[in-house]
Amino acid sequence: MAAIFPVQLQWGECGPAGIILYPVYFRWFDAATWNLLALAGYDASRMRTERRAAPLVSAECRIANSAEQQDRCDVRSRIARWGGKSFVVRHEVVRDDGVRLAEGSETRVWGRYESGPGSPMKGETIGEEIKALFRAR
Amino acid sequence: MAAIFPVQLQWGECGPAGIILYPVYFRWFDAATWNLLALAGYDASRMRTERRAAPLVSAECRIANSAEQQDRCDVRSRIARWGGKSFVVRHEVVRDDGVRLAEGSETRVWGRYESGPGSPMKGETIGEEIKALFRAR
Amino acid sequence: MAAIFPVQLQWGECGPAGIILYPVYFRWFDAATWNLLALAGYDASRMRTERRAAPLVSAECRIANSAEQQDRCDVRSRIARWGGKSFVVRHEVVRDDGVRLAEGSETRVWGRYESGPGSPMKGETIGEEIKALFRAR
Amino acid sequence: MAAIFPVQLQWGECGPAGIILYPVYFRWFDAATWNLLALAGYDASRMRTERRAAPLVSAECRIANSAEQQDRCDVRSRIARWGGKSFVVRHEVVRDDGVRLAEGSETRVWGRYESGPGSPMKGETIGEEIKALFRAR
Repeated sequence: MAAIFPVQLQWGECGPAGIILYPVYFRWFDAATWNLLALAGYDASRMRTERRAAPLVSAECRIANSAEQQDRCDVRSRIARWGGKSFVVRHEVVRDDGVRLAEGSETRVWGRYESGPGSPMKGETIGEEIKALFRAR
Repeated sequence: MAAIFPVQLQWGECGPAGIILYPVYFRWFDAATWNLLALAGYDASRMRTERRAAPLVSAECRIANSAEQQDRCDVRSRIARWGGKSFVVRHEVVRDDGVRLAEGSETRVWGRYESGPGSPMKGETIGEEIKALFRAR
Repeated sequence: MAAIFPVQLQWGECGPAGIILYPVYFRWFDAATWNLLALAGYDASRMRTERRAAPLVSAECRIANSAEQQDRCDVRSRIARWGGKSFVVRHEVVRDDGVRLAEGSETRVWGRYESGPGSPMKGETIGEEIKALFRAR
Repeated sequence: MAAIFPVQLQWGECGPAGIILYPVYFRWFDAATWNLLALAGYDASRMRTERRAAPLVSAECRIANSAEQQDRCDVRSRIARWGGKSFVVRHEVVRDDGVRLAEGSETRVWGRYESGPGSPMKGETIGEEIKALFRAR
């Protein structure tokens, strides 16, 4: 399964060099992971109701080409690896002419709050039924 | 009482025109209001413990001069008006050479969550003892 | 003419209260104005080529209802008023169930750089042929 | 040489989980690198005058502990490696109680625009005299 999250680079996401401010790639990655979760059945309201969280452990991005204002891109995301209580999402940013602008990954914990945001959060073992949801699509 | 919140404009807060991206002024206003609350005794941890909130009703900003990367400014904030359950914070952004870059205001409700963020929030009457905290400084 | 700019509120645009961080409304307004300009024929690359700019003079926003993560909204934008060298864009943020979340406006100068971003910028008289482009749609 | 860039986590930089939105770490890294450049003699105005740029090739961050609203941290930055035309900056985010929250790195090119932002940019060999500027401090 690869989830597609379409974006268009805005003026307010570009810097004095006239190209993307690089932290924007990570904002896209974050949004693309939420999109991937939603497609697998875990949308924002279910995540809230079940007190689930997917906090970040690490993230990295390599930039091949610069995005410019008005560029339309797809962020293509898929689970690259399942750990016991964590997972790795791999993201590619591909401009609408097919040029790959950037790629990267996020490592996240699959967790649950005791009683809601702000309360202690614990990682949970990722069962086969959850992995299947991401494979199914 | 006027609270001073010092800022320095960063590369990542400037746009392709080489000057500040204007929503950054509102990020500064928001942070400056939290600073004002903290100086009056309501810092972030007390706000959380007492389940308080100060959600925005409206905001406006007028720009006189452009901030550029590396400019150091003070955001000067004070309560401009107390309503029954709301208040207006007035902000001025003054560069370190004394030039006023921007001014604006925020109208906010003085509220409290029933049981924490996400639960229903109700405005509360702002008593004289609270107003005194902001006057005292 | 009213331009429609669709947005979806992301996790990274929400704050500790679980709702939109208010400066995001202004990022949406800014992007929606660029979208409006593009629809009238002034897309980002033409703006660059002709050394045009539309710097902000003032902005304001009034919030009626809170946007939550995953909410889909349209930002509906139109020219509310033409000045000699400036114009006012009015924006409405309407959630996909028809509820109006926020409304506001931006006042901007219609300007041109002498030789590119960073060089001096001058306001230009807005001719009838330009106004017609925005009316036409 | 290690440059210190002090930050304080703001409400508007925290997400629904009540902790830092992770792309903020990269905004801090970016600002901390500009601070490091400035301390070595290359402040924003010199970078502009000499048409210099330091575009990002890659970035990564590992999070050990969560930053919360109001936390004061230092971003400690130093050159970790010099390449021919590129360099690696290593960043550590340390809270004021000494706890390390995050660490990461950026790889950047040392470049120069032909005629200003927007014009073609070329990497330049990093001479010993430049390296010395960063060592000197």
